[in-house]
Amino acid sequence: MLIATALVLMMTVPALALFYGGMTRSKSVLNMMMMSYVAAAIVGILYVAIGWSMGWAGDVDSGGTFFANPFDLFWLKDVGTENYVFVMFQMTFAIITCALISGAVADRMKFSAWLLFIPVWAVIVYFPLAHMVFSCTADSLICGRIGAQDYAGGTAVHINAGVAALVLVLLLGKRSGWPKDKMRPHNLTLTMLGAGLLWFGWYGFNVGSIVIVDQDITAEMGRTFANTTLATMAAILGWLVIERLVHGKATSLGAASGIVAGLVAITPAAGAVDIEGAVAIGAVAGAVCAWAVGLKFRLGYDDSLDVVGVHLVGGIIGTVLIGVFSTSDGAGGVDGLLYGGGLGSLGDQSLGVVVAVLYSGILTAVIALGVKYTIGLRLDEDDEVGGIDLAEHGESAYDLHQGSFSSGAGSTGVLAKSTVRTEEGAQA
Amino acid sequence: MLIATALVLMMTVPALALFYGGMTRSKSVLNMMMMSYVAAAIVGILYVAIGWSMGWAGDVDSGGTFFANPFDLFWLKDVGTENYVFVMFQMTFAIITCALISGAVADRMKFSAWLLFIPVWAVIVYFPLAHMVFSCTADSLICGRIGAQDYAGGTAVHINAGVAALVLVLLLGKRSGWPKDKMRPHNLTLTMLGAGLLWFGWYGFNVGSIVIVDQDITAEMGRTFANTTLATMAAILGWLVIERLVHGKATSLGAASGIVAGLVAITPAAGAVDIEGAVAIGAVAGAVCAWAVGLKFRLGYDDSLDVVGVHLVGGIIGTVLIGVFSTSDGAGGVDGLLYGGGLGSLGDQSLGVVVAVLYSGILTAVIALGVKYTIGLRLDEDDEVGGIDLAEHGESAYDLHQGSFSSGAGSTGVLAKSTVRTEEGAQA
Amino acid sequence: MLIATALVLMMTVPALALFYGGMTRSKSVLNMMMMSYVAAAIVGILYVAIGWSMGWAGDVDSGGTFFANPFDLFWLKDVGTENYVFVMFQMTFAIITCALISGAVADRMKFSAWLLFIPVWAVIVYFPLAHMVFSCTADSLICGRIGAQDYAGGTAVHINAGVAALVLVLLLGKRSGWPKDKMRPHNLTLTMLGAGLLWFGWYGFNVGSIVIVDQDITAEMGRTFANTTLATMAAILGWLVIERLVHGKATSLGAASGIVAGLVAITPAAGAVDIEGAVAIGAVAGAVCAWAVGLKFRLGYDDSLDVVGVHLVGGIIGTVLIGVFSTSDGAGGVDGLLYGGGLGSLGDQSLGVVVAVLYSGILTAVIALGVKYTIGLRLDEDDEVGGIDLAEHGESAYDLHQGSFSSGAGSTGVLAKSTVRTEEGAQA
Repeated sequence: MLIATALVLMMTVPALALFYGGMTRSKSVLNMMMMSYVAAAIVGILYVAIGWSMGWAGDVDSGGTFFANPFDLFWLKDVGTENYVFVMFQMTFAIITCALISGAVADRMKFSAWLLFIPVWAVIVYFPLAHMVFSCTADSLICGRIGAQDYAGGTAVHINAGVAALVLVLLLGKRSGWPKDKMRPHNLTLTMLGAGLLWFGWYGFNVGSIVIVDQDITAEMGRTFANTTLATMAAILGWLVIERLVHGKATSLGAASGIVAGLVAITPAAGAVDIEGAVAIGAVAGAVCAWAVGLKFRLGYDDSLDVVGVHLVGGIIGTVLIGVFSTSDGAGGVDGLLYGGGLGSLGDQSLGVVVAVLYSGILTAVIALGVKYTIGLRLDEDDEVGGIDLAEHGESAYDLHQGSFSSGAGSTGVLAKSTVRTEEGAQA
Repeated sequence: MLIATALVLMMTVPALALFYGGMTRSKSVLNMMMMSYVAAAIVGILYVAIGWSMGWAGDVDSGGTFFANPFDLFWLKDVGTENYVFVMFQMTFAIITCALISGAVADRMKFSAWLLFIPVWAVIVYFPLAHMVFSCTADSLICGRIGAQDYAGGTAVHINAGVAALVLVLLLGKRSGWPKDKMRPHNLTLTMLGAGLLWFGWYGFNVGSIVIVDQDITAEMGRTFANTTLATMAAILGWLVIERLVHGKATSLGAASGIVAGLVAITPAAGAVDIEGAVAIGAVAGAVCAWAVGLKFRLGYDDSLDVVGVHLVGGIIGTVLIGVFSTSDGAGGVDGLLYGGGLGSLGDQSLGVVVAVLYSGILTAVIALGVKYTIGLRLDEDDEVGGIDLAEHGESAYDLHQGSFSSGAGSTGVLAKSTVRTEEGAQA
Repeated sequence: MLIATALVLMMTVPALALFYGGMTRSKSVLNMMMMSYVAAAIVGILYVAIGWSMGWAGDVDSGGTFFANPFDLFWLKDVGTENYVFVMFQMTFAIITCALISGAVADRMKFSAWLLFIPVWAVIVYFPLAHMVFSCTADSLICGRIGAQDYAGGTAVHINAGVAALVLVLLLGKRSGWPKDKMRPHNLTLTMLGAGLLWFGWYGFNVGSIVIVDQDITAEMGRTFANTTLATMAAILGWLVIERLVHGKATSLGAASGIVAGLVAITPAAGAVDIEGAVAIGAVAGAVCAWAVGLKFRLGYDDSLDVVGVHLVGGIIGTVLIGVFSTSDGAGGVDGLLYGGGLGSLGDQSLGVVVAVLYSGILTAVIALGVKYTIGLRLDEDDEVGGIDLAEHGESAYDLHQGSFSSGAGSTGVLAKSTVRTEEGAQA
């Protein structure tokens, strides 16, 4: 569990930050990384304060349909240190869910708005959804009452983050120049690196989650590990095949995105299906998400780094397909449609998805509107065009031409220590 | 084992991809990374389908000299989920062996040819060699019949990949402009990062392999861990000393390459020798490989990123030197030349090397010729000069000048979503 | 322990090398990374030779006040292989302590001087301090005689490296152009990546250290893990708040530095305090270090990448605040000032700090003066301005413009294989 927890934290800092950072333009990469890093710091401390109490106290005192009392276990009072690692493990889920949203708002969300939005969203949206899904008491809505299976967070993590991302970009509006300007990824090696580290860390995510669900650890761990691996591989191939057929080329951005799409889709299902089911879910997720990331151009919402196309769509695929591919050998003990279980599980899973979408969508809209009409969501257009890194952090990521013969080339840093400026800026 | 397996997968995605990617020119880095990523996806699924059955079924039904029946355990039927992690562990060896080859063919191998070559090569070359070495039944050729020690893959992984690389570059021919153009590494920080992550992951490789071999786990793990560490350190120093003496400077590329050379050489020997032996093997491997990477210029084969010089040469060094430095305290229970065991072990080890070289060399040539005379191995020269990333993937890795004041500078992406173009391309 | 050890090694290679490398100018990044990589190789082998014997033999034969006999366990003779992992774990502490120093001497220390300084410093300064702190026999100075608590290396690692860094920069002198030239970080994505990997690896550092101290493993591991996490989060926020208040912007360099400052400060205290104490120590360390890194401009010492401001200051904060926040529930069983333990612990901790500062400061000065007046510490000014990567390693890190249409653009590499040159250099 210790290692699983460290791995999941590593998924946010630095893996997700790199995956997203590489896809932004060079003038926005630091802001993108910062959104993950500060989300880790803020949500982590908040989770210890009230998140654990709201989400898991249900195990102790039965909790409610939506959440448990935030103050029963405030600041982990009455929680023995032998349970701390498990608290930390759940904390890392809260962190990455919040950080996932950042990919949608690239280039244009005020950093102060992010700093305000994230803790409020964690408390009002994530902590309750985590309770409904993971704290599986009889009263908890999605797990207990509906009976939907969600192994490691298809609803609470990926659908939740995807819906929140969609709501936020609709309220934020499009980036200046989008979609006419192509806004190409500035450093795909970072994105490939980030995707690779996400894959590595995701074993903590999925395999670590088995400890909660089942006691026959060795066999279940093996199944979960294999499912996570094979779904990801199938999703890479699924994405690249569609890309090749539709666009004529298989891209590295597609491979990196396929990795994430496969991991997202297998997350809810990793304990419920067998390896054929995992390959099927991965392949479907890769192919469908490869198509879904093009929707934003047709529908006109500027989901900058495809949080909706990958996490919302991939999360729905994985959660719903449990109803098709789950087997009674799995952790949930339920047969899906394909194994003679009829439509019951498919119905439960679909209802779970609908509840997660509505809960997250409505409350995210309320919070985001609140931020919009108080401190404002959106950066000034001049600052956006000039680059959010410079505007919000006083830095730019790269200064690669300080080599021989150019060291004195006009460094006009704004801050004493840390500010960097683009070459263009410095020479202007 | 779970962690060891995740670590070895991480060695390919992203560590090896970064190590190789940093050494290519900037116009080829994405293709280089893609070769590792797609090899992981393809070989992984193939391994579950028939690789495990061909390689390991021998433990069940004794198998043959070269391989076991591919269909006995097809798609893991009759394999309990409690064994899945071990299957995955062996799968990661298959993946990295295939991915290692990619370093030799940088800049010029058609991506479709790679996609065809790899699965055929895995089935015909890797799966059987893995059976001969790791599935140590009495019938298996290298382990059972010859009795050569190979702890974690000196023959099946490194010599195998190195020979395949050599055959492939001979059939592919030299890159346009080589060796006149220097073709310098485009980003040595990626290479250093990749080498560092390879070192980290390699503990999974070597220490994970102990579980198979020996039951006195704690003591054996300690020995293996220490040997892996010390051989790598000695190889860094060995490489840098030779570089300093011959070229006048100790380079970072040398340090990164020394890490890999040391790890390669200790791979077969990690359980067989004690720490003096490990330091000796590492130092010899570092020094000899530092010299061997220059051979391509003298002999005229364009092994772009030195797969032959590091993996073939390092693999031979490690495998053969077991015959000198192994001790009967080790996992194999055999004394080498230096410990009074005479020439017996040295002979067995050398014969194992010869078998691996011949098997891999002949069959790789057959497969590569098959690809060459059907779909062709080699990219068009125009595409090679223009850059394989753009030609095969419609992308280029970096677009670092989208900062302030330049966002509208002519983005003429070929694909809707993912294509990036070099600055030069965009301005042309 | 195996995993903890691999993680701590990964902290040096590649994490610290990336964290520091990104902060240098592009003409110095390879030299910066090389200082970490060669320190790993040299100190690792030296540790096995005599480091373990000097530091830990005390457990066997009681050792002395300052160190144990270097030859009692020379080259691990009489050490069973079942103890090798623990030897390796301690080795990684020696490695990272030496590597930490490199951040202070960026751009200007001769590579040969580093190669000479490091092994001498390890033997004369680190190995004894590790004995005084970690080998807690009755005779050992800091742990046994003074009774100061130091969980995982506040004194022996961070204060020690920070003092050595300060001494070295005073003897080396300022970089050419400092502080007039701003010398901005050349690649903050590397620094953010490095900081993220350091955080990940640090769990090995702190949690691995629990095995030595206490037997109630599960509860203690949970506490240590949670303290490490929360202190880091609090330090990120502490640093960014100060930065925002003083400079107007919260920077990514600040977030990355805050991570390290928090980890440094919690290192000595991770087992001694509870989660409130951890948050307090982290927040204080983040805020104070954010201020302390500006001291070099006022006092005029060129501590290039803030080893003094982060490691010396953060190490003192963490070590001293144990005297305030430690609780008798913790591993040390001592109540600090805030828990009714009076000033006793605060006095012990402060005395431990003073001893570490004096021991390290005086002996580092002797060694550095020895190097200065024999082979010399400082690079020629021409080489420094031209770039230490080119001068000392014959390489430069980046060559990003080899894309389409520019492959023949004048590659005038100095070495046959590995040398790269900056664009400027190539065109000159």
